[in-house]
Amino acid sequence: MEKTMIGLVKENRGPGAVLKEVPVPTIGPDEVLVRVKASSICGTDVHIYNWDAWAEKSVVTGNVFGHEFAGIVEEIGSRVANVRLGDHVSAEGHMVCGHCKPCRTGNAHVCLNTRSFGITAPGCFAEYAVVKASNIILNDPDMPFSLACLQDPLGNAVQTVLSGDIVGKSVVIIGAGLIGLMSIAVAKACGAGRIIAADINPYRLDMAHQMGADVLIDSTKKKLSQAILEHTNGEGAEVVLEMSGHPEAMREGFEGAAHAARVSLLGIPTADVALDMGQIIFKGIRVEGITGRKMYETWYQMKGLLARNVLNLEGLITHTFTLDRYEEAFDLMRQGLCGKVVFLHELSNHTASAYNNREHSFQVIS
Amino acid sequence: MEKTMIGLVKENRGPGAVLKEVPVPTIGPDEVLVRVKASSICGTDVHIYNWDAWAEKSVVTGNVFGHEFAGIVEEIGSRVANVRLGDHVSAEGHMVCGHCKPCRTGNAHVCLNTRSFGITAPGCFAEYAVVKASNIILNDPDMPFSLACLQDPLGNAVQTVLSGDIVGKSVVIIGAGLIGLMSIAVAKACGAGRIIAADINPYRLDMAHQMGADVLIDSTKKKLSQAILEHTNGEGAEVVLEMSGHPEAMREGFEGAAHAARVSLLGIPTADVALDMGQIIFKGIRVEGITGRKMYETWYQMKGLLARNVLNLEGLITHTFTLDRYEEAFDLMRQGLCGKVVFLHELSNHTASAYNNREHSFQVIS
Amino acid sequence: MEKTMIGLVKENRGPGAVLKEVPVPTIGPDEVLVRVKASSICGTDVHIYNWDAWAEKSVVTGNVFGHEFAGIVEEIGSRVANVRLGDHVSAEGHMVCGHCKPCRTGNAHVCLNTRSFGITAPGCFAEYAVVKASNIILNDPDMPFSLACLQDPLGNAVQTVLSGDIVGKSVVIIGAGLIGLMSIAVAKACGAGRIIAADINPYRLDMAHQMGADVLIDSTKKKLSQAILEHTNGEGAEVVLEMSGHPEAMREGFEGAAHAARVSLLGIPTADVALDMGQIIFKGIRVEGITGRKMYETWYQMKGLLARNVLNLEGLITHTFTLDRYEEAFDLMRQGLCGKVVFLHELSNHTASAYNNREHSFQVIS
Amino acid sequence: MEKTMIGLVKENRGPGAVLKEVPVPTIGPDEVLVRVKASSICGTDVHIYNWDAWAEKSVVTGNVFGHEFAGIVEEIGSRVANVRLGDHVSAEGHMVCGHCKPCRTGNAHVCLNTRSFGITAPGCFAEYAVVKASNIILNDPDMPFSLACLQDPLGNAVQTVLSGDIVGKSVVIIGAGLIGLMSIAVAKACGAGRIIAADINPYRLDMAHQMGADVLIDSTKKKLSQAILEHTNGEGAEVVLEMSGHPEAMREGFEGAAHAARVSLLGIPTADVALDMGQIIFKGIRVEGITGRKMYETWYQMKGLLARNVLNLEGLITHTFTLDRYEEAFDLMRQGLCGKVVFLHELSNHTASAYNNREHSFQVIS
Repeated sequence: MEKTMIGLVKENRGPGAVLKEVPVPTIGPDEVLVRVKASSICGTDVHIYNWDAWAEKSVVTGNVFGHEFAGIVEEIGSRVANVRLGDHVSAEGHMVCGHCKPCRTGNAHVCLNTRSFGITAPGCFAEYAVVKASNIILNDPDMPFSLACLQDPLGNAVQTVLSGDIVGKSVVIIGAGLIGLMSIAVAKACGAGRIIAADINPYRLDMAHQMGADVLIDSTKKKLSQAILEHTNGEGAEVVLEMSGHPEAMREGFEGAAHAARVSLLGIPTADVALDMGQIIFKGIRVEGITGRKMYETWYQMKGLLARNVLNLEGLITHTFTLDRYEEAFDLMRQGLCGKVVFLHELSNHTASAYNNREHSFQVIS
Repeated sequence: MEKTMIGLVKENRGPGAVLKEVPVPTIGPDEVLVRVKASSICGTDVHIYNWDAWAEKSVVTGNVFGHEFAGIVEEIGSRVANVRLGDHVSAEGHMVCGHCKPCRTGNAHVCLNTRSFGITAPGCFAEYAVVKASNIILNDPDMPFSLACLQDPLGNAVQTVLSGDIVGKSVVIIGAGLIGLMSIAVAKACGAGRIIAADINPYRLDMAHQMGADVLIDSTKKKLSQAILEHTNGEGAEVVLEMSGHPEAMREGFEGAAHAARVSLLGIPTADVALDMGQIIFKGIRVEGITGRKMYETWYQMKGLLARNVLNLEGLITHTFTLDRYEEAFDLMRQGLCGKVVFLHELSNHTASAYNNREHSFQVIS
Repeated sequence: MEKTMIGLVKENRGPGAVLKEVPVPTIGPDEVLVRVKASSICGTDVHIYNWDAWAEKSVVTGNVFGHEFAGIVEEIGSRVANVRLGDHVSAEGHMVCGHCKPCRTGNAHVCLNTRSFGITAPGCFAEYAVVKASNIILNDPDMPFSLACLQDPLGNAVQTVLSGDIVGKSVVIIGAGLIGLMSIAVAKACGAGRIIAADINPYRLDMAHQMGADVLIDSTKKKLSQAILEHTNGEGAEVVLEMSGHPEAMREGFEGAAHAARVSLLGIPTADVALDMGQIIFKGIRVEGITGRKMYETWYQMKGLLARNVLNLEGLITHTFTLDRYEEAFDLMRQGLCGKVVFLHELSNHTASAYNNREHSFQVIS
Repeated sequence: MEKTMIGLVKENRGPGAVLKEVPVPTIGPDEVLVRVKASSICGTDVHIYNWDAWAEKSVVTGNVFGHEFAGIVEEIGSRVANVRLGDHVSAEGHMVCGHCKPCRTGNAHVCLNTRSFGITAPGCFAEYAVVKASNIILNDPDMPFSLACLQDPLGNAVQTVLSGDIVGKSVVIIGAGLIGLMSIAVAKACGAGRIIAADINPYRLDMAHQMGADVLIDSTKKKLSQAILEHTNGEGAEVVLEMSGHPEAMREGFEGAAHAARVSLLGIPTADVALDMGQIIFKGIRVEGITGRKMYETWYQMKGLLARNVLNLEGLITHTFTLDRYEEAFDLMRQGLCGKVVFLHELSNHTASAYNNREHSFQVIS
C-alpha cells in the first residue's frame, strides 16, 4: 500500500494552496528522500501563493511547493555515494543539467536548463521531499533545523556580499527584507567597513538596527543618494547591494555609489528601469547580477561562517508555525510585519492531539 | 622675447576654433615640453568643436585643445627623472591628483580630481605641448608618429576588451567607430573567439570587415539580439562591448548577452536608458563601466601588443592633414565617412619657406 | 560472441607493452563508446612504457593505456544526454568524483578522488575506448583527428599560459618539450609580449624557433637568469612558465622573474628543489601549480582558439605510426629527436584486406 | 640656531645603538614633519640592533632608525596638499619611485627603487620624523597612538590574510610572532573558518589562544602537517600563512595544504629551502609572496577594520617604555618573552624628572 504524507500543494493556477494527503514521493537512483524537519517561507512562495504574473509564467502546479528546508535523510538511491542515512541536510534548489557551458565553467547557478525545487519541481512544504543527491548540503547535526532551513536565502546574501571585495569598505544595503537583513550580518562577519541600511518600512529598519547596521536611512524621508554621500564623507558607498528591486532605489543606488564602486543587484524590478548609464561608465563601476548561490562555493563559505557562529540569524525568525497554519503564515508574510516565518514540521504530542480532529491536520510522528 | 607657436585654440564658448599664434608654454619642475609631431581627432574634439551640451558643461575655453598626440621631448623640468631630451613620447591625458582613494587604490583612471589634457587643460593641437612627467609614455623611436598618436583611443579599446576574460570567447562589438574598430584588432590579437561587429553605417561595417570581424551585423536590417543569438549557437555573446552609446543598441546588447556574460560599457548615452535589469540578474551578467585607460596597466599591455606588431592600425588612418586644414578635417569627422583623421605637425621644405623668418612658426602645407 | 579489438596493453609491472587482442569494452549507462581514430604519445606514456618509479607508484596494469585521442562516438549509454552517435570527440582524462570540495568549487582538476583515463583506468591505444559522458569534448567534424588528439596536452599549455595575465607581458618558457612548444603558440595567440624559450636541446630550440619564439636561450651555454634579464631590459620576465621540471632551471626561473611576476609550474621535479624563497617574498611573486586542465574552462578557451585557426600545431607532429609500430614510436620518444608522435588508428585498404575476416579487428600498416 | 632632538641612532656598523642629541630634520617641499608620539619595535629593528648578516647588507648607518610610529603633523612642505597641521598620522615606510613598472601597475610595494624609512633612510625612534607626504596615512584622532603605531606590521598581516579568499576557509598560521598573532585577529574579523595557529614557543601559543585561534599546535610535540590534517577532516588547510621563515615549517605548511589551497609566504628563510615542488603542482596550489603592504589598498582595508573596532590589538602590547630605556626594550625583544614593545615618546612630568640626571635621557616636553 502506498505511503502517504501531508503536503501543502499548489493545486490550481490561481491564489491559495491546499494542505492535503499526497503520496510520499519515490526516489530515483541519484536521489535522496529527506524527512523535512523545518522549512521557511520565501518571498517567492508568497508570489506562488498569491499567484501573480511571475507565477503564471514560471510555476508548475500540482506539486508541493516551498524550497527552503532542513531535514534528515531517510532513504538514498542506489547510486548515491556522498550522503548517508541519518545525515542532517539541506539542499541547493537549482537542479542543473551539468553539461551546458555555464554548468561546465563554474556558472551552474545560471545553468541554461535549470529546474527549480519547489517551483518547477516538487518542493519541501511536506513531511518528505525528494532531493537530487548532487544538491545535498550536509549540515552540522548540532545546528537547529529552524536555523538550517534558512541557508537558501542566506546563500543569496552570502553570494551578494561576496561578489566583490568587502573588507573595510563602506556598504549600503538597499532593501531590508530578509536577504537584506542577512546581508548585514554577513557583511559584518566578513570585515565590511561602515554598513548603511535603507528601507521605507520602519519595522524593517528596526530589524536592520538589531542586525547591526551602523546607519539607517528611511528613504521616504531623505533622498537616498544624498544620505549615502553624507555618511561616506561625500565619496559614496564603495559597495552597493540592491535588494529592493525598486526602480527609484536602484537609480539612487547608482547615484550614491563611489568611483570604482561595485554594485550587486539581487532585487528584481517588475518593469524596465531608466538608468543614467553614464554614471556606470564615468565612475568606472562594476555591476554584478546575482542569481541563487554559487554552486557550491557559496555553500562552503556559508558553512564556515555558520560554524564560527558569527551570524546572528536566530533573531530573524519572528514567527514559527506548524504547516496546518499555513494560511496565517502566508497572511503574515503578505502584511510584511514579520521577519522570517518558519514551519516546524515536527510536533510535540501535546500539540498534535489538538489537531487530531481537524481535517487537514499536519501529520504527526509518535 | 617670448617664443610663439601656432596652435588650434578653442577661443569661444560656441562652435568652431581658431588657428593662431600663441606663446610656447613654459614648463614647471614636474613637467615636460613636447614638440608635437602628430595628433589625431577624437570624437570628443568634435563635441568641443561643435560645442554641444556636454562641451558647455565640461570644457575650459581659451586653450589649445586636442589630446591624442606623439612627439619628441625638447625640455624637461628640474625634478623630472623618468624622461630624457629626445625621447619619443605620447601621454596619458588624465592628470590625476594622486591622493584620493581611487588614485591610491589602483583606480586613478576615475580619480576624484582629474584634469583632462586638451579639455580642461591645454592640449596638443599645436607645435608644442606641456605634459606632466608622470603621464609621459615612452614610445619606441621606430614607431611612426602617426601611429603613436593613436594610443589614447587604442588604450580605450584595450581597457574595454581586457576588462574581463576574452580568450576563446564570442565577442560582439556594438558600434564600429574608431574605438570599436580598434577593439576588433585588440580582441583578435588577444585570442578572442568569434568576433561579431554591429553598426548601422555600411562604411563602418566595411571597415570592421577589413579589421577582421568574423560576422557583420547591420542593425538597421536585423534585430541585433536576434542576430547575435544566430551567430552564437543560440547562447548569446559571452562578451559584449558596447561602444555606440545608443539606448536601443545597449538594450539589444543585454538581450543578446549569454548567461554569465561580461558586458563592458564605453559608449555614453546622452539620456537615461530604460533597461530590463532582470536580464542582468537572471543571467548573472557582470557589467564593467569603462573610462579612459588603467593607469598604467593598459599602457603596458598596449606597448606589448604594439611591439609585436599584431594590430593592423595603419589601415584605420584614412586621412591626414596639416593643422591649418583643420576645418576640412572637422567637417570630414562630422560627416563620419572616414576612419581616423590625423594631423601631421611636420612640414615639407616647400611650405616651410613661407614661414622662414619666424623662429618657431607652425608651418602649413597647401 | 564477444567482440574483440586490438589494443596496446600494459600487461606487466615492468618495461614494455603488448599489442594484443582484447574484448571491446562495454559501456555503462553514463558512458560512451568511442571508435578511436588518432591518439598521441604523452611523456607520461613513456614513463609507463619504461616503467620508472613514478609508474610503479601510480599505474594500474592489465589495461590498454594512452590518454590523448580523438574519435567518433559509436555507442552511448542509456542516461547520456549530451552526446550523439557519430559525434567527433575527444575527452578530458581526469575522471572526477563530483562531490569532494575541489570538485564542488571549480577545482575538479585537483579532485581528491581522480581516476585517470589510460593510467589508473583503461585508455585509448586501441580501436575503441570507453569514456565517461561527462568528460566528452565535442570536436568540430572538420578538425583532422591527428590534430584533435593533441587537445589534452594543448590544454595543459592553455591552462599554464592563462593561469594569470599574459597580454603584452614578457614570457619565458623553460623547457621546450611538446607542452612548452604548444605554450609558445598559445602565448602568441593570446597577446603575449616578448616570448623567450629556453632549453638544453638544440633540436627543441629549433622547434621553438619554428613555433615563433622571439628569443632562444641554450641554457647549457649561458646562465638562464642572466639571459632572461638581458632580454627584458634588466627587469626579468613578467611571466615564467616552468615546463622542464629541472631543479636548476626552476631556480633560474625564479631568479629571472620580474618583481610582481607570475611563475606557473607544470614540470615535475623528481626530487626536492632547494629554492631561495626570499625571492618569491621580496619580489612579490605569485606561483601557480598547474595540473591537467580546468574542467572545463580550459577546453572552451581551447575550442575558441582552435576555431580561429591561430595555433600552428600541425608543425608539431613530426611522426605518425600505426599502432603495431608502437616499439619504433616509443624508441623515438625516448631519444627525444621528435616533436609529437601520433598513432593513426585508420587503415589503408591494402592492409585492411589482411584482416578481412575479422569483425572489428585493428589493422596494421607495414 | 639649529633645533635639536633626542633620537636613537644606529651609528656604527656593529651591534647596539646610541641615544643622542641630533638636529631636528628639515623637510622638503613634498615632505611633512611629524612629532612622534609612539613607536614600536619590529623584528627588523632587532636585526639592525644586533647587526646580523642581513643588516650588514641592507642598512644605511648614521641615521635614526625605527619605522613603526604614530604622531602629529607639525610642519608641511610647500607642495603638500593632502595633509594638514595637527593631523594624526602614521606612514607607509616604503618610499617608492613612482615611475618603474611595478609602481605604475599597482605593485608599488615591490618598487624597483624603494628606499625604506628607518632602514635605508632616517626613521622614527626620535622626537621628530620626516615623512614623504605621499606616504602619510591619516589616523582617526580618537585612536590611541600606541595602537596607531602598530599599523605597519598590522598591514603585513592584512595583506597576507587577504592575498586570496578567506571567508569560511580553514586557515593555518605558522609562526605566532607579532604579525602571526595579528593575522589571527584579521582572519577572524574577515570571516575565516577554523583558525589553527602553530608555533614552537608556549608563550606565543598562549598569546595565539588569547587572540582567538581555534586550534593550537605545538610543532615541537607533533608533526605539523599531521596535526593540520587532523583538524581539517583530513583535507588540509585551505589557506596557509607562513610567518615563521623556518624551512621545516615551510615544508610542513605545503604538506598540510589542501588541494587548491593558497599558501602566502611572509616569513623569510635565511637559507635555501628544499621543497617538494610536486605538491604545489599536483595539488594546484597558489603561492603568494608577501612584501610590505599594498599601496594603499591594504591601508584602506585596515582603516575600515580599525574603525569597526573588531581587532583586539591592545592585548598584543605587553610592554611600553620611554625611548631612553631602549636597551631594556631590545633585550626583552631578543628574549622573545613579550608581545609588542612600544615606545611612548611623550612623558609625564613626573617620570621626566626621574630621568633628569641620566646622560642619555629622553627629551621631555613640559
